[in-house]
Amino acid sequence: MKFATLADDAHRDGRAVAVSDDLTTCRAMPVSLLDMLAQEPNAVGPRGPEMPFAEADALAPLPRAAQFLDGSAYVNHVALVRQARGAAMPESFWTDPLIYQGCPAPCLPATAPITGDPNWGIDFEAEVAVITGDVPQGANPEAAAAAIRLVMLCNDISLRNLVPGELAKGFGFLQSKPPNAFSPVAVTPDALPGWDGRKLHGALRVDLNGQPFGRADAGRDMTFDFGQLLAHAARTRPLPAGTILGSGTVSNRGADGGPGRTVAAGGAGYSCIAEQRMVETILTGAPVTPFLQPGDRARIWMEDDHGRSIFGTIAQEVQAP
Amino acid sequence: MKFATLADDAHRDGRAVAVSDDLTTCRAMPVSLLDMLAQEPNAVGPRGPEMPFAEADALAPLPRAAQFLDGSAYVNHVALVRQARGAAMPESFWTDPLIYQGCPAPCLPATAPITGDPNWGIDFEAEVAVITGDVPQGANPEAAAAAIRLVMLCNDISLRNLVPGELAKGFGFLQSKPPNAFSPVAVTPDALPGWDGRKLHGALRVDLNGQPFGRADAGRDMTFDFGQLLAHAARTRPLPAGTILGSGTVSNRGADGGPGRTVAAGGAGYSCIAEQRMVETILTGAPVTPFLQPGDRARIWMEDDHGRSIFGTIAQEVQAP
Repeated sequence: MKFATLADDAHRDGRAVAVSDDLTTCRAMPVSLLDMLAQEPNAVGPRGPEMPFAEADALAPLPRAAQFLDGSAYVNHVALVRQARGAAMPESFWTDPLIYQGCPAPCLPATAPITGDPNWGIDFEAEVAVITGDVPQGANPEAAAAAIRLVMLCNDISLRNLVPGELAKGFGFLQSKPPNAFSPVAVTPDALPGWDGRKLHGALRVDLNGQPFGRADAGRDMTFDFGQLLAHAARTRPLPAGTILGSGTVSNRGADGGPGRTVAAGGAGYSCIAEQRMVETILTGAPVTPFLQPGDRARIWMEDDHGRSIFGTIAQEVQAP
Repeated sequence: MKFATLADDAHRDGRAVAVSDDLTTCRAMPVSLLDMLAQEPNAVGPRGPEMPFAEADALAPLPRAAQFLDGSAYVNHVALVRQARGAAMPESFWTDPLIYQGCPAPCLPATAPITGDPNWGIDFEAEVAVITGDVPQGANPEAAAAAIRLVMLCNDISLRNLVPGELAKGFGFLQSKPPNAFSPVAVTPDALPGWDGRKLHGALRVDLNGQPFGRADAGRDMTFDFGQLLAHAARTRPLPAGTILGSGTVSNRGADGGPGRTVAAGGAGYSCIAEQRMVETILTGAPVTPFLQPGDRARIWMEDDHGRSIFGTIAQEVQAP
């Protein structure tokens, strides 16, 4: 099944709707998606009559998450980021997942404007994200993967120019990782083409200002699968129903071991501007592509084998401050 | 007014009650505390008859927070921690607040057992925490302080032996900062003795296994007040109603500029074991006090001028794994 959340004046968690496979119609659910997650989503039947569904009306599937955790599952990308800035990456990064605690609320709608000072270095990061039911503390990767209730897409908005100063303080991201936007629709694993139980296979499509920017396969080069990421996070805590875990920026290696070159050049392209800038730096000594400016438009989506949108589209425009 | 949250089988946010000043009786509120925070808590009247209130029945005031942010407002403590481990502290730490994103759910009840492997180096951190209404992005310290709706106490449980390895990875705390426990009762600023609008004055009382361990004044040596901390967090994001921000470990300087010596020696003592171990290290070359072991009991509370408990007591015991 596919689910979305519509605005509800009475509650910030919104009201859930079951959405048709083709994303054109929906039916009201009796409780919010957050409340449904404590149960088995497929077990709660839709109520009310069929009505039109418009992606632009959707809030994030979970306007507030229980926890928001974001991984760095595509480690080749991390290694190259560090290479570009001349920093060593510990060998343990290939075996010990890297995850940070991010902003669990507000989770932004797919069409939310991106606000902020362009001098902050605004970037998108296209990711796959899962929403869990209850994951007990100490769950192993198999049990954690079995607790995945829904899958969606995420734009992990990053303020690149605030990152170095903040990380130098030693306690991780805060100002440099503002609220994220999510696809209009979240999909249960049983209804999701390309889902193998631990990873999502298929091209994560990213367009920047109407031009193809990224077509990386989310199932390739994912060093840690969602079961492993969730188990890492659950080592010392439970993950309550409604926890979101993002994959980190999806990234495919090119033939040279680096990330896929531009889509125009026949490569997999990039899922964030920073990665393109990193490759430009390695190739030419300096980045060329600027970070997002007011008026820039980013689109993130995935398609099934018939070219139909699976999750709807994250479509955001940067607003002047 | 004082508020607490009781368990509600129908919803994980629980049901709010208004608690009498002396913490002995309560009356049901019509909505959860999380929902109340989008309004003015004093504006929602209690419903239902007066009934007995028992601290042990209370959940955390917010079983799920919108965001959980934890500051390091007592910078002298941070400076000494770094001194003890031979690391330099940037001068900017005195002017630029340090805050990390922590675990927003579950927030644990005041009497929750502390679980975990004793080899992880389990420690308590006694803190003051505020709960906000809606704080818009870019709010200044004055506006942010005005959005404080409730004040409570927090035990920011820390797994000290997991900290160095995790921070070395560069993305902050995850496994080393499991869910926190909170006082049974949260208090509105207008009903809170010692609250000056930005800081809470008075002794934060910590007992370890029945012996006085900390009596630091939460209003002393707080380099950044709650308005400044909230404004720092809100620079690039809104803080939704139901955001919790902790002060960081409360710490008073001793006469020598170090933290207060033991309570038994007439000092202010410590609000976490790590700080006592740090002073032991500076004085004798090695820590003496062990981190928490199964069976150890920590109590955290504050009293008004008449010796009455303001927030109720955080009273936790470490369970064998």
